Amino acid sequence: MKEAKHIAIVGATGAVGEEMLACLDQRNFPISELTLLASARSAGKTIPFQGKDIIVKELTHDSFEGVDIALFAAGGDTSLEYAPSAAKAGAIVIDNSSAYRMDDEVPLIVPEINPEAAKEAKKGIIANPNCTTIISLMALFPLHKKYGLKAIIASSYQAVSGSGAQGIAELKQQCEALANGGEIVSEVYPTQIAFNVIPQVDVFQPDNYTKEELKMLNESRKILGVPELKVTCTCVRVPVYRSHAVSITAVFENKPSVEDARAVYANYPGVDSKDDPSQNLFPTPLDTTLKDDCLVGRIREDKVIDNALALWVVGDQVRKGAALNAVQIAEIL
Amino acid sequence: MKEAKHIAIVGATGAVGEEMLACLDQRNFPISELTLLASARSAGKTIPFQGKDIIVKELTHDSFEGVDIALFAAGGDTSLEYAPSAAKAGAIVIDNSSAYRMDDEVPLIVPEINPEAAKEAKKGIIANPNCTTIISLMALFPLHKKYGLKAIIASSYQAVSGSGAQGIAELKQQCEALANGGEIVSEVYPTQIAFNVIPQVDVFQPDNYTKEELKMLNESRKILGVPELKVTCTCVRVPVYRSHAVSITAVFENKPSVEDARAVYANYPGVDSKDDPSQNLFPTPLDTTLKDDCLVGRIREDKVIDNALALWVVGDQVRKGAALNAVQIAEIL
Repeated sequence: MKEAKHIAIVGATGAVGEEMLACLDQRNFPISELTLLASARSAGKTIPFQGKDIIVKELTHDSFEGVDIALFAAGGDTSLEYAPSAAKAGAIVIDNSSAYRMDDEVPLIVPEINPEAAKEAKKGIIANPNCTTIISLMALFPLHKKYGLKAIIASSYQAVSGSGAQGIAELKQQCEALANGGEIVSEVYPTQIAFNVIPQVDVFQPDNYTKEELKMLNESRKILGVPELKVTCTCVRVPVYRSHAVSITAVFENKPSVEDARAVYANYPGVDSKDDPSQNLFPTPLDTTLKDDCLVGRIREDKVIDNALALWVVGDQVRKGAALNAVQIAEIL
Repeated sequence: MKEAKHIAIVGATGAVGEEMLACLDQRNFPISELTLLASARSAGKTIPFQGKDIIVKELTHDSFEGVDIALFAAGGDTSLEYAPSAAKAGAIVIDNSSAYRMDDEVPLIVPEINPEAAKEAKKGIIANPNCTTIISLMALFPLHKKYGLKAIIASSYQAVSGSGAQGIAELKQQCEALANGGEIVSEVYPTQIAFNVIPQVDVFQPDNYTKEELKMLNESRKILGVPELKVTCTCVRVPVYRSHAVSITAVFENKPSVEDARAVYANYPGVDSKDDPSQNLFPTPLDTTLKDDCLVGRIREDKVIDNALALWVVGDQVRKGAALNAVQIAEIL
């Protein structure tokens, strides 16, 4: 029997924080005590969990007394400031921000791919990967194990939930304004996202790629343990509420057949194929919304690169792309 | 001075037909007579044009007496049945459907790329290319001329206008139903398009690609005159009303620098660059809506393939992707 743990959630009132609570509940995670933390602005709110109303407390450096596992879902700055305090108090931190992902002493984990890395959390911190990276690797890892992944060319279709509750609210506001003649407010995104797509996610870097696009490169290398992996990525925000989709050309050492690739998903946890062109079967973001598993479809031979497949993967960004993956890491511990 | 022509529009009440009228008007195309044709269902409607109300007539095999140029915008079956009658009556047909595009005796033209092909219209029919292909080639042709295009890997973000007025109406209906608690109707698309993306445009072919994806391959080869061009394409419908976007990795014989690539658009008609990451400048579909020119941005070195650039192009699907391109072909004649 598992020992019940004292769990803290930092950013409990955000989109990912709320989903972490839902995942802990649905998966019957053994909890001895639950501490919900947020900024002063949200402190005092109550959040129901398993029949009790839990009061959200203000996050301070002293919030982590007796906490076994601290799930951080409040942005990079908060993680940088408070995760060391949590670790110092003896908690294991599972951080959803990008702050520690590329730190050599911090494991970066997708539980279906590299759970063994959890042992190497030298700082008491484990990082949860970027959502687009997790979802892409859920499709690519089963193929990588069999055929050896060498390169990825990807274009993403990312939901507004990736920007948290504010992203969701901004899309909703804009749709209502367009329907009722009101004024469109663009604060989260650089321009209108309703009935538009925006080829910028996170800030631009000196090589003309965005930080989000380079996460696919750097985080994939670290999670798969393939330092020479090549990745070209174009990250695009689309007016979808919470599942991401990614169109991928994946290049392998050895040639995979389309039939083998489809079959490979039958035996994998957390990912399944939905792929039968003869029956018009393919996955869309709505298929994975509020679901744990990622879905892969549109698998076919790439027509440009040898030993490459084109494919399409969708996954719930809030769930597998963030909250679920973090809770699964907590389960490994 | 140009001689005024008797123009007929087949499918005058559809989304593309209406836009053809707008383009003829805005470009002061010299018209001696205008015949608007549609199915029996739409015949009898009046459409205003340059101060006159023109009555839409029912399309028959005898509709083309005295017509100089017949613009077809009513789907492949209508073109297959009536375009030969128009050509037989002495009209030059400019066909927006896919029916004749791959016919060896029918030129397939983007006026900025291969206007000279118009001379070879042996059947009296000229084909207007697929919208995603036109918009992609507007970005790629200036680079092709300088660096020699070898291959394209593309993922599209296609507006619902590509399915005509019904596609636009379906997205609108679904958004209203979701806002007001009504029932979602999916007739044009295989599943909900509002707040979703659908990785299927046109029907599946035996190689697991869709017909739309193979158009990018076959039509690009014909328009550019590069029979060995390789193309992998994933066509995706997104909830945008009328501009398409395409994320492209373009592979060249010779290595283009990012600076050269940006500069190349300064001197080209019909396409411009909007690309300055330091100023957060990139084009979105709303930037080209109701505009003639396509816009290219996100130009950067591809990290997977040598001599390749990653880029992003947007263009108004109804205008440059269909109606404008057809009217520009008429202008060549």
